[in-house]
Amino acid sequence: MLNEAAILAARRNLTEISMDEINDAIDRVLAGPEKKDRVMSEKRKELVAYHEAGHALVGALMPDYDPVQKISIIPRGRAGGLTWFTPSEDRMDSGLYSRAYLENQMAVALGGRIAEELIYGEEEVTTGASNDLQQVANVARQMVTRFGMSDNLGPVALGRQQGNMFLGRDIMSERDFSEETASTIDSEVRDLVDVAYNRAKTVLQENRHILDKLADMLVDKETVDAEELQSLLASNDVKTAAFA
Amino acid sequence: MLNEAAILAARRNLTEISMDEINDAIDRVLAGPEKKDRVMSEKRKELVAYHEAGHALVGALMPDYDPVQKISIIPRGRAGGLTWFTPSEDRMDSGLYSRAYLENQMAVALGGRIAEELIYGEEEVTTGASNDLQQVANVARQMVTRFGMSDNLGPVALGRQQGNMFLGRDIMSERDFSEETASTIDSEVRDLVDVAYNRAKTVLQENRHILDKLADMLVDKETVDAEELQSLLASNDVKTAAFA
Amino acid sequence: MLNEAAILAARRNLTEISMDEINDAIDRVLAGPEKKDRVMSEKRKELVAYHEAGHALVGALMPDYDPVQKISIIPRGRAGGLTWFTPSEDRMDSGLYSRAYLENQMAVALGGRIAEELIYGEEEVTTGASNDLQQVANVARQMVTRFGMSDNLGPVALGRQQGNMFLGRDIMSERDFSEETASTIDSEVRDLVDVAYNRAKTVLQENRHILDKLADMLVDKETVDAEELQSLLASNDVKTAAFA
Amino acid sequence: MLNEAAILAARRNLTEISMDEINDAIDRVLAGPEKKDRVMSEKRKELVAYHEAGHALVGALMPDYDPVQKISIIPRGRAGGLTWFTPSEDRMDSGLYSRAYLENQMAVALGGRIAEELIYGEEEVTTGASNDLQQVANVARQMVTRFGMSDNLGPVALGRQQGNMFLGRDIMSERDFSEETASTIDSEVRDLVDVAYNRAKTVLQENRHILDKLADMLVDKETVDAEELQSLLASNDVKTAAFA
Amino acid sequence: MLNEAAILAARRNLTEISMDEINDAIDRVLAGPEKKDRVMSEKRKELVAYHEAGHALVGALMPDYDPVQKISIIPRGRAGGLTWFTPSEDRMDSGLYSRAYLENQMAVALGGRIAEELIYGEEEVTTGASNDLQQVANVARQMVTRFGMSDNLGPVALGRQQGNMFLGRDIMSERDFSEETASTIDSEVRDLVDVAYNRAKTVLQENRHILDKLADMLVDKETVDAEELQSLLASNDVKTAAFA
Amino acid sequence: MLNEAAILAARRNLTEISMDEINDAIDRVLAGPEKKDRVMSEKRKELVAYHEAGHALVGALMPDYDPVQKISIIPRGRAGGLTWFTPSEDRMDSGLYSRAYLENQMAVALGGRIAEELIYGEEEVTTGASNDLQQVANVARQMVTRFGMSDNLGPVALGRQQGNMFLGRDIMSERDFSEETASTIDSEVRDLVDVAYNRAKTVLQENRHILDKLADMLVDKETVDAEELQSLLASNDVKTAAFA
Repeated sequence: MLNEAAILAARRNLTEISMDEINDAIDRVLAGPEKKDRVMSEKRKELVAYHEAGHALVGALMPDYDPVQKISIIPRGRAGGLTWFTPSEDRMDSGLYSRAYLENQMAVALGGRIAEELIYGEEEVTTGASNDLQQVANVARQMVTRFGMSDNLGPVALGRQQGNMFLGRDIMSERDFSEETASTIDSEVRDLVDVAYNRAKTVLQENRHILDKLADMLVDKETVDAEELQSLLASNDVKTAAFA
Repeated sequence: MLNEAAILAARRNLTEISMDEINDAIDRVLAGPEKKDRVMSEKRKELVAYHEAGHALVGALMPDYDPVQKISIIPRGRAGGLTWFTPSEDRMDSGLYSRAYLENQMAVALGGRIAEELIYGEEEVTTGASNDLQQVANVARQMVTRFGMSDNLGPVALGRQQGNMFLGRDIMSERDFSEETASTIDSEVRDLVDVAYNRAKTVLQENRHILDKLADMLVDKETVDAEELQSLLASNDVKTAAFA
Repeated sequence: MLNEAAILAARRNLTEISMDEINDAIDRVLAGPEKKDRVMSEKRKELVAYHEAGHALVGALMPDYDPVQKISIIPRGRAGGLTWFTPSEDRMDSGLYSRAYLENQMAVALGGRIAEELIYGEEEVTTGASNDLQQVANVARQMVTRFGMSDNLGPVALGRQQGNMFLGRDIMSERDFSEETASTIDSEVRDLVDVAYNRAKTVLQENRHILDKLADMLVDKETVDAEELQSLLASNDVKTAAFA
Repeated sequence: MLNEAAILAARRNLTEISMDEINDAIDRVLAGPEKKDRVMSEKRKELVAYHEAGHALVGALMPDYDPVQKISIIPRGRAGGLTWFTPSEDRMDSGLYSRAYLENQMAVALGGRIAEELIYGEEEVTTGASNDLQQVANVARQMVTRFGMSDNLGPVALGRQQGNMFLGRDIMSERDFSEETASTIDSEVRDLVDVAYNRAKTVLQENRHILDKLADMLVDKETVDAEELQSLLASNDVKTAAFA
Repeated sequence: MLNEAAILAARRNLTEISMDEINDAIDRVLAGPEKKDRVMSEKRKELVAYHEAGHALVGALMPDYDPVQKISIIPRGRAGGLTWFTPSEDRMDSGLYSRAYLENQMAVALGGRIAEELIYGEEEVTTGASNDLQQVANVARQMVTRFGMSDNLGPVALGRQQGNMFLGRDIMSERDFSEETASTIDSEVRDLVDVAYNRAKTVLQENRHILDKLADMLVDKETVDAEELQSLLASNDVKTAAFA
Repeated sequence: MLNEAAILAARRNLTEISMDEINDAIDRVLAGPEKKDRVMSEKRKELVAYHEAGHALVGALMPDYDPVQKISIIPRGRAGGLTWFTPSEDRMDSGLYSRAYLENQMAVALGGRIAEELIYGEEEVTTGASNDLQQVANVARQMVTRFGMSDNLGPVALGRQQGNMFLGRDIMSERDFSEETASTIDSEVRDLVDVAYNRAKTVLQENRHILDKLADMLVDKETVDAEELQSLLASNDVKTAAFA
């Protein structure tokens, strides 16, 4: 099961196995793997396709982000679909992630929700982004509290790391700072999220034509691989003003 | 028992089994099922009928909400009555709920209390809405903290999800944000609830004539099924200005 | 013992068995029942008589409240005396309590302390009201946080219900709201209590002549039953301006 | 051991056995009883004598307080001396304590520290009052939070009573109120303590001549009984302006 | 081990055995006693000598403080050196400590750090004062919260004492007061510490000539006993303006 | 395993073994030692080389800091590289660390992150500094709360030390101070970190030429020992204006 968790962690580009991965591994062992025969309406299929296409397209167009490996709208576990990225061996091996990479990671995670918003409008966005938003929160909060990537809070860890996964407790941080600092952390986290959101939204708005095509392909074929995505991008006019 | 819980969760249109469902399943196993022979006064029967009619009518008139399956005023467990909705296979299978759906869900949950208010006045509303109000709180709070459906707090999860149901702990969130954020969450939750309340109230006020008839039917027959409800709605002038 | 607890809960017009009832049942099993031979001074006997008469008279005169069943100043457990009400079958069976009923319940609970105040003055009020004040707090807080009976906080539960009595934990609520909301809850609770206090006080002041006679009867006979109370009320001029 | 605890509770005029009593009973069983052969310097003996005389004299002169039974400066456990009061059977049996009684109880508890202050000055007061100050805190806090004896906070319990002594947990209250209320509680507690302090100080200042004589008697005889105290008071001019 | 703890408590002039003493006793049993053969550089030896001389000199010159028994710069456990005081039998037996004594105790505890400051400057003060500063905090906080020795907070305990050492829990206090009170406690603690700091600093500045000589003696002989200290003081001009 | 932890603690110049060391020792036992055959891209290798060179150079140039023993960019455990310092026997044996030393220690810990910043720019700094930033937080917080090295908070410990490592609990401090004090602690911690950051940055900026050469050497040879570092420094123009 710890094995499962490690695999999940790798898939999610995480630098360490947290209880989330362990829990998911448990879910998986207990709940079984993919549900290929789960029938989805065309409407839901399209929504999931746009959601995954949103992740994939932002990921593919962010400079220096991990390449997309596969996009699928076959439901598995609680997820309606899934997009795999190939973590660069470099990052995997070194365990080092740059600030720019983490900012990209947040933008990629937000890509799914933003795609829903663009296509269906605010009222029709779904609960399907829940895990993405949790990941965004984790990354942003760690940038601020563990990686010293907030100018307002400076190069110092906030909250003391506690526990050891192998002892059965989650690696969680004890809050040893004041309310005032907690409030600054929240506002720094929000700033990081807003920047990532706006970057991802611009990418998807500017490349709406590709988003539509990719979603179409997913509805058609259920799975799109790296090569197929590359040829789609190659045969279309990609806008990258967002990172100019 | 986990089975019971899963059934209850499905009935309540929940996306996951929480401790509430497990607890209720326990209650049920320990406390036995419905209490058909529990004698209620005509006055209480009427109140329960209006309460359930409130849920059902709001549900039936909300655009794109799950269709009503059955309405009953036969007491079961602690509940005086119960209204069943048929979750669309689409939602069940995809596990995806839109913002609009969740807003409707809150309106439906509030329909019972609002019916009591309209018919009997504020002083006579009862404790019978307690579970409904808890559900409203859960939905609204999750919209804000897990589903990124609050403009003021943005597309980011608040509070870290912890625990794993299968390990015997509830899926609860650790509060890792500041008092200031907690206060904004409360105010966003309140706004969502107020909007849902006003929508449901308008529906019931505008369709008071149908509410009265449906409550009458329930007092008479104790149970009203989907077909009977449909023919009631078909033979009456339904106002839907509330969602214009 | 759970049985004992259920009986106690019924006697107290509670909608569910809480740890209080379980604890009391434990107390009872461990501490034995009434203490008929406990000798009280005339002074204490009179005070207890006024205290119970206060509960009973407010209860008897509140519109639509449960009828008084028996009043006793024979000590039992830690209580100096006890007043029993007959919960209407309607309420018992439906488990539904109206806002007006809960407001009356608080007034009745406060009747004991207020009678002490009126007769002996503020300096001589006793610790005997301790359970009453806890009950007032429980009712008022639940009205605000679970039953949506506060205009300022709206139709939404506050704090997440947790635990399951059968699993050995009390049904307690996890505080998931902000300090600001906590402060509003306190002020709403206080308002509900103040209104109930003033209503009960007016009833007892206006019917002081009956309060005195009922206390006298209790000192004389130790126990007054429903019939005796009814004939006392019938033969005296009852003022009910308080609820006009 | 629970027996020991009950005895200790009775001796301290407490209305219920708390963990303090249980702990002390444990201490006693483990640490043995009085230490008659513990040698104290004359200076310490005098200080203890004044401390106990302070308790006893305030107790004897407070209107309607429990009569002094015995005063001793023989050390026992951690206490340098001890003053016993005879709880009136009335209070013991009824379990009812008036507001005036509790105010007196605080004044009596403070009498020891105040006597030290009057005789030796502020710099020489000792740690010996530690238990007294804890008792003062307990009484004042319960008056405010459990007995509704604070005008600013009204007739309502604050904090939910939890736990059951027989289940091994202390009867402690869960804080379910806001910071604002916590702050008001603190200020009400402080007011009650200040009033009690001033009353006790006035009594001891006005009757300093008796305080000196009683302390002398204690240094001489180590133990003074009720009769001896009565004859001391009878043969001296007692000032009672403090309660006029 | 409890025995060890009791001995440690006695050595530290503590009124009760806390978990600190128990922990240290554990350390000692597990980590072995003194480390006579630990080699220290001359520079460190001198620093430790000044640190201990600081404790000893403040202790010796504070009016009515426990006499110095021995001063040593032989490392033991984590401590670089140690100064023993002979608690007066009077205090030991009575368990009573005056406010003045506790103020002196804080000054003595601060003497080590202040000596480092005076000789080496602020940048060179060391972590060696860590235990002293913890003791200062404990004494000051207890003066304010348990012994009623703060004018601003009055004669009342703050925080409820909980737990019983023999049951395996530390004697710790549950915080039952408001943030506002917590803030006042902090400021009272700080005031007590500042006064003690200034008194100790004045003593050491005025008697710098003796401090130097005592430190010299310690570097030379590693251990200085009561008699040697007395003759040093007798043959030098002692300034005591600090307590005038 | 405790042995491993002790070794780790010694390597990190810590004064006591904390749970961090124990956890790391567990990691090591479970995760195996260095990973010599882990292949890193040239880009990552260079980044790690600059990071370690940053630590080493700041350490080598800080006055009176422990001499560098070895610098390595061979990954081990989660770390991409490691710089060893030889703690002076004096400090090891005495267990005494001066304020200046702790300030240097923070500067050294920050050297890695600052080197990344100088070379690659803010967007390219990595998560690799995470442990360094935790160490900086620990040192700064302990300076303020345990070692009395903050002028604004004075010579007093803040938070009560609790637990005993050998009993399986981390040595953590219970927060017994107010929000206001917590806020002052945060601001003092931030000030200490900012000073250390600026000192380390100045050192690296002024000696950028040496930083580049040292990083080159590391990329070439993977390991640089004390002698090699010394000859590098000897043959280059070292600027030390930062500590003038």
